[in-house]
Amino acid sequence: MKDIKGFVFDAYGTLFDVFSVTALCEQIFPGKGSALAQLWRVKQLQYAMMRSLMGRHRDFWQLTEDGLVYACTSLGLELTAEARACLLQAYLTLAAFPDVRPGLEALKGRGLRLAILSNGEPKMLEAVAQSAGILELLDCIISVEAVKIFKPSPRVYGMAPERLGVSSAELRFVSSNSWDVAGAASAGLGAFWIQRSAAEPPEELGFGAERVVHAITDLPTLLGR
Amino acid sequence: MKDIKGFVFDAYGTLFDVFSVTALCEQIFPGKGSALAQLWRVKQLQYAMMRSLMGRHRDFWQLTEDGLVYACTSLGLELTAEARACLLQAYLTLAAFPDVRPGLEALKGRGLRLAILSNGEPKMLEAVAQSAGILELLDCIISVEAVKIFKPSPRVYGMAPERLGVSSAELRFVSSNSWDVAGAASAGLGAFWIQRSAAEPPEELGFGAERVVHAITDLPTLLGR
Repeated sequence: MKDIKGFVFDAYGTLFDVFSVTALCEQIFPGKGSALAQLWRVKQLQYAMMRSLMGRHRDFWQLTEDGLVYACTSLGLELTAEARACLLQAYLTLAAFPDVRPGLEALKGRGLRLAILSNGEPKMLEAVAQSAGILELLDCIISVEAVKIFKPSPRVYGMAPERLGVSSAELRFVSSNSWDVAGAASAGLGAFWIQRSAAEPPEELGFGAERVVHAITDLPTLLGR
Repeated sequence: MKDIKGFVFDAYGTLFDVFSVTALCEQIFPGKGSALAQLWRVKQLQYAMMRSLMGRHRDFWQLTEDGLVYACTSLGLELTAEARACLLQAYLTLAAFPDVRPGLEALKGRGLRLAILSNGEPKMLEAVAQSAGILELLDCIISVEAVKIFKPSPRVYGMAPERLGVSSAELRFVSSNSWDVAGAASAGLGAFWIQRSAAEPPEELGFGAERVVHAITDLPTLLGR
């Protein structure tokens, strides 16, 4: 752990709480907010993987809209142009989890290089990082748009060392999505799992986390210096 | 439609009811049968797509077991060796939907060539088709194991014309999974969607069904002869 010189973080679910849109969903569709937020997220992710396998890439901003459209239709909710624009905009101002800013500040204070490595489209990632007040703590934002295939393809994780300027042995990938940890580990990166819900088991994908932590503020103490 | 000379069917969810294991799940884990059957299916499919993107293929029989292990752990259910073996065996004797046998018999009677094209591993597909009494109606069973990547990769759908001996213009792919229809259509096959639940919207994947029907027994009348 002493050799670690950089951390690369997943964005959605790890730094930014995708369910912070639930209140807005509930305000627009009373009684259906939670169901909409959940199904929206499921579809957004499913479409990313399906389109990658189909060889029909479309950026994550478009998939976020596609997922919203499906989720509303499936739940019998009429998505007006106004509601659609309003809900999509909310994805640019997702809340960061409370441990994110203090955790990143502590790591930055120790001289580590920090980045995001995400399925997100570059502009949406920059907007949400800016909105959450963590943009200046990041050395770079690495988007799958550079390779036009989504996680968990090894081509995505393979970008991290060169883009961050840290060798893969001195770098760790951090995600709260256990399947994303498996993808990174399968691609040869050491990976830490942020288990945000204590009841959640790791995915049965054959590649596990080097360490399991519960918050980004747990990372500085792991470095042992 | 008059030119159609063969149909290629998805297996799980289309011919065979994956939720016919629910009663057994409920018997082994009272009060949790439905939740277990649902999560088991979600994980089985998710792992297929994730492993294909990771480039870490594992056959569908193994993924069926991996999905069962995750689902039980996630729901706090203790999966004994006996329960595991019993639940996995149930996947070899899934019930066919009631429209399957009469629908296939009517198509066969009109001289059409019929096949399964599935994520399933060959032996599990043969066992379930035998158990459901439809094995003798099929000209062949095409498994993704020949290409070691799962749907919706175009490499899977691309096997159908040659293996069935019917040109792609004279062949139709049939699935109750809307994403599977999109995958086939994206790969250049005409595809029919069996919409088994009237409330289910099509997936927002940019490729739609040529026709939407509600049962396999609807297919013979479409042929117009």
